[in-house]
Amino acid sequence: MNRADQIPEPVAVFGPGLLGGSLALAVRRRMPGAEVRIWCRREEAAADVRERGIASMASTSVRDVASGAAFIILCTPVGVMPALARQIAACELVRDCAVTDVGSVKGSIVAALEPVFANTGAVFVGSHPMAGSEKTGIDAAREDLFEGAACIVTPPSAGEAAALARVRVFWSALGCRVLEMSATEHDRKVARISHLPHVMAAITTLASLRPDADALKCAAGGFRDTTRVAGGDPAMWAGILSENRSEVLAALRDAAGATRELLEIVEGLDEEKLRLFLAEAKNLRDRLGPGAAAAYGND
Amino acid sequence: MNRADQIPEPVAVFGPGLLGGSLALAVRRRMPGAEVRIWCRREEAAADVRERGIASMASTSVRDVASGAAFIILCTPVGVMPALARQIAACELVRDCAVTDVGSVKGSIVAALEPVFANTGAVFVGSHPMAGSEKTGIDAAREDLFEGAACIVTPPSAGEAAALARVRVFWSALGCRVLEMSATEHDRKVARISHLPHVMAAITTLASLRPDADALKCAAGGFRDTTRVAGGDPAMWAGILSENRSEVLAALRDAAGATRELLEIVEGLDEEKLRLFLAEAKNLRDRLGPGAAAAYGND
Repeated sequence: MNRADQIPEPVAVFGPGLLGGSLALAVRRRMPGAEVRIWCRREEAAADVRERGIASMASTSVRDVASGAAFIILCTPVGVMPALARQIAACELVRDCAVTDVGSVKGSIVAALEPVFANTGAVFVGSHPMAGSEKTGIDAAREDLFEGAACIVTPPSAGEAAALARVRVFWSALGCRVLEMSATEHDRKVARISHLPHVMAAITTLASLRPDADALKCAAGGFRDTTRVAGGDPAMWAGILSENRSEVLAALRDAAGATRELLEIVEGLDEEKLRLFLAEAKNLRDRLGPGAAAAYGND
Repeated sequence: MNRADQIPEPVAVFGPGLLGGSLALAVRRRMPGAEVRIWCRREEAAADVRERGIASMASTSVRDVASGAAFIILCTPVGVMPALARQIAACELVRDCAVTDVGSVKGSIVAALEPVFANTGAVFVGSHPMAGSEKTGIDAAREDLFEGAACIVTPPSAGEAAALARVRVFWSALGCRVLEMSATEHDRKVARISHLPHVMAAITTLASLRPDADALKCAAGGFRDTTRVAGGDPAMWAGILSENRSEVLAALRDAAGATRELLEIVEGLDEEKLRLFLAEAKNLRDRLGPGAAAAYGND
């Protein structure tokens, strides 16, 4: 049974990684007794999930996990979502079943997945919880991963209000701040606020350490934090950045422009211009507020 | 009385900001009963220090604070150190008094301050504890700020071993990992591992938020950490970057080069090259080790 303000269940999680594992833990914490199923590509992963006891059932069968589920969440890398979605759409889906995902891009995913679920009774609604870690895998899963995190939800193009409401309720119940915007706006904003910081962390690491990795022994919190997300999974991030290529390129060109701007200031020996450049950045950064460390999720 | 493995005292701290305040707290914690004096430029700051009870005495008189001190630490902005050092050198200094600093550049400071203390009986030894915060001022002071932090010490050019040993003992007693290197090597390494991350945090903030500051509502841990140090004091950082200009320029040019490299990869749609670029950064970043969050100070 599902009340309007409760997490719709059974919940079917596809992919037992950091996000899928954390979802299972979070649902169990927020709604003890809810039925949570986890689909795993490999049998060893399913056995591991069973051993951890974090789900009501774990299986490599798409049909066993999807059939009868009221809420389906795709937590796999974005590249494999379309093929997996087609397998799910071929199962007996509950009428009004909401299907969502946790992918870091929305335009290409929504365009690919909405039509897959058309005429199945289920509705696809894109989600992107701004939560994660530079770590990957179920060992890094945390039941509080989503608490305080922004979760961006993209309203379905056919306007299915019930499915959208169900997705909103789900993320709210997990402690997220739900934001609604189009997939296009998501991809533009997230290119700036998540994908760009990721590549800048990689660029900073390379410019810092390529000439002299021994400098690492002098590292402090500035280097540690500025480069933390460069420790993320390269294959996963290459996929995300490629999927959001045009917005990432625009953001990266702006970063190259700001770098040239700063180079000219430092070359020109103008300490006052340098102060103004740093002050503009500080004023923008300070808008995040002092509570940011506690109130925002990782990504 | 000073044992060879003890903090030499009286300790005279010049400048009651984040670092000076944290030093006073740290000395009190590590060596209860040690005499700690704090010099403040403004009488209101001295009164504030007295009210907080974090020092044996606080004064705006350079003479009252410096005379008879066994260990002097300059914790002011780097730009005002030479003039302040000349006032200190004119006081009655204890023979073998070690004078050090906490400045983020060493070449220009060592070149300016070593000759000031020649023939005074005191010896200047450059220090740079890799500890700090994007916050400034005594309110942000913490007694554990230096614990686990690297502290770079530059051996004096005339080879005064006793003063160098005294400075090493001081930082070790405060829980630092002491590293010895020339001022030139310091400036080169720190440009890469501290100054570059700082300007990259500012560049990332500007490229992320200039076109659309509203994207901030979607921010998560990636943006928060990658840009944290952009919240630092612009005037202080403009001073630091200007003092280490040629090394900062070299690092920034490498960052501009890595940005162009990545732009070409993303423009070229080569996901495998993108993965390799990110993997190179990850491999370098991973050398920091999983204990980094706990074991390294901020800066």
